[in-house]
Amino acid sequence: MKARVHVMLKNGVLDPQGEAVRHALGSLGFEGVDGVRQGKVIELDLAETDAAKAKATVTEMCEKLLANTVIESYSVEIA
Amino acid sequence: MKARVHVMLKNGVLDPQGEAVRHALGSLGFEGVDGVRQGKVIELDLAETDAAKAKATVTEMCEKLLANTVIESYSVEIA
Repeated sequence: MKARVHVMLKNGVLDPQGEAVRHALGSLGFEGVDGVRQGKVIELDLAETDAAKAKATVTEMCEKLLANTVIESYSVEIA
Repeated sequence: MKARVHVMLKNGVLDPQGEAVRHALGSLGFEGVDGVRQGKVIELDLAETDAAKAKATVTEMCEKLLANTVIESYSVEIA
């Protein structure tokens, strides 16, 4: 079973990486880019076959390791 | 208009970051994690209102800046 986790900085937390991308896009001549946020995506290949259990396990992984919940939010998709 | 870009290392390209996550999950007692790949997600806030044009622009951004197409693949979602 595959799981995909998105980890993004929370709104209000400065995102210098995203800001750098926005600036670089402007330098390359791309106009009309109002905002850029950059985050992480983590794709997991799990032995678990039950979707609900897999989601619970991955949520625990996020809380313990994958996201810093003080400044980052995460979302879990099971496919 | 919002766009989301996923940039992942191509299959066959070593992903030491994903491997480190897999190892750390094992150390924390999570079993049955067969593979981990880590990539980037970039959320763009665009002034463009036409979905087809936005997708074309973002694809050009990927080719020019956001992805290193030698080792990375990307996908664009317009929302």
